Amino acid sequence: MELDERPILYSYWRSSCSWRVRTSLLWKNIDYNTIPVNLLVNEHKSAEYTAINPMQEVPTLVIDGNTLTQSLAILEYLEETHTEKPLLPSDPLTRAKVRSLVGAIAIDTQPAQNLRILKYVGDEKSQDWAKHWITWAFEGIEKQLSSTAGNYCVGDEVTLADVCLVPQVFNARRCGVDMSRFPIISRIDANCVKLEAFKLSDPYAQIDCSEPKGT
Amino acid sequence: MELDERPILYSYWRSSCSWRVRTSLLWKNIDYNTIPVNLLVNEHKSAEYTAINPMQEVPTLVIDGNTLTQSLAILEYLEETHTEKPLLPSDPLTRAKVRSLVGAIAIDTQPAQNLRILKYVGDEKSQDWAKHWITWAFEGIEKQLSSTAGNYCVGDEVTLADVCLVPQVFNARRCGVDMSRFPIISRIDANCVKLEAFKLSDPYAQIDCSEPKGT
Repeated sequence: MELDERPILYSYWRSSCSWRVRTSLLWKNIDYNTIPVNLLVNEHKSAEYTAINPMQEVPTLVIDGNTLTQSLAILEYLEETHTEKPLLPSDPLTRAKVRSLVGAIAIDTQPAQNLRILKYVGDEKSQDWAKHWITWAFEGIEKQLSSTAGNYCVGDEVTLADVCLVPQVFNARRCGVDMSRFPIISRIDANCVKLEAFKLSDPYAQIDCSEPKGT
Repeated sequence: MELDERPILYSYWRSSCSWRVRTSLLWKNIDYNTIPVNLLVNEHKSAEYTAINPMQEVPTLVIDGNTLTQSLAILEYLEETHTEKPLLPSDPLTRAKVRSLVGAIAIDTQPAQNLRILKYVGDEKSQDWAKHWITWAFEGIEKQLSSTAGNYCVGDEVTLADVCLVPQVFNARRCGVDMSRFPIISRIDANCVKLEAFKLSDPYAQIDCSEPKGT
């Protein structure tokens, strides 16, 4: 396949980590090409893909001639190199508040319920497992947000914390977490999904989406 | 307890995430007080501790009048505010390489085998579970290091990737991972543990260490 000079995002439509990077690229108006990697048929484990992403994960971003892996590393790179429309505030303390919420989501929530863990847990138990860990984490995140949130996770500007929160709320709903217990998280999510970058990065807006919305 | 004006680190001796922050503080010659939080008797779940750390986790760092949570957020804050002896390189691409390895360890490895997950998995299965996920992740990390490592994870300077790697190798050995399969990881670990900041941040050098080394 011949591609133009735009960045290439290796992405899976329902991957939270891919979604984070899609949102940042769209937020910053960085036009990019998507190459879908279908996790359900193990495309991420092919020799070709492993050569560019040794952890066999999505996303991978090829940008500025470089191949970058790990969603948080990519998000930080985009902050440092594409400084228009920042997703991190400027002062170190507020940045730490944003990154603390990013950690609570990307480290304490998502890894406990990602696809490889759920496969290992087994079909029978996987939904309860995911629900348990997302609920556990959201209890702490809701408390943490009570002292940082405005319209978004930290005050009234969209940050990397929101970029990470929205896909996690999607996963929570998908596995039946009772979101009425988390009014702040729900309110922030509702504010975010009105924004163009979140709409366009939504799984159901992706070229490799294989299910109609609502299934 | 009356404390002086030094930063306060809420830490548990065997917590990888506490260890990362201890190493950075020591590396940067930031003198600090430790307040031990004993995870084994649920001190992290007390109302008092939950008020400062809503996720009920270690570490928490009180510094410059602020209370910071999440090890990676704290490490980034220390990079931004204590710029002497940096643990991140200066150019965005090399920073992304470091942060990618940080993600491979702190997101893809540690959360799958932390104490709360292992408790939930149950005593009988927990060692096999931890061994499985650390081995899985180390296979990818070893590959990734083959294109980035010098004496340390990325070239010949100590970075945040090394700060995260050393505690993970400790955990790997503890649950019986065959480290002979990972020669690059083993070599970097051996190089790091010769350095003062890693020696002094080692679990067995902590005031709350409750076991003799080698048990």
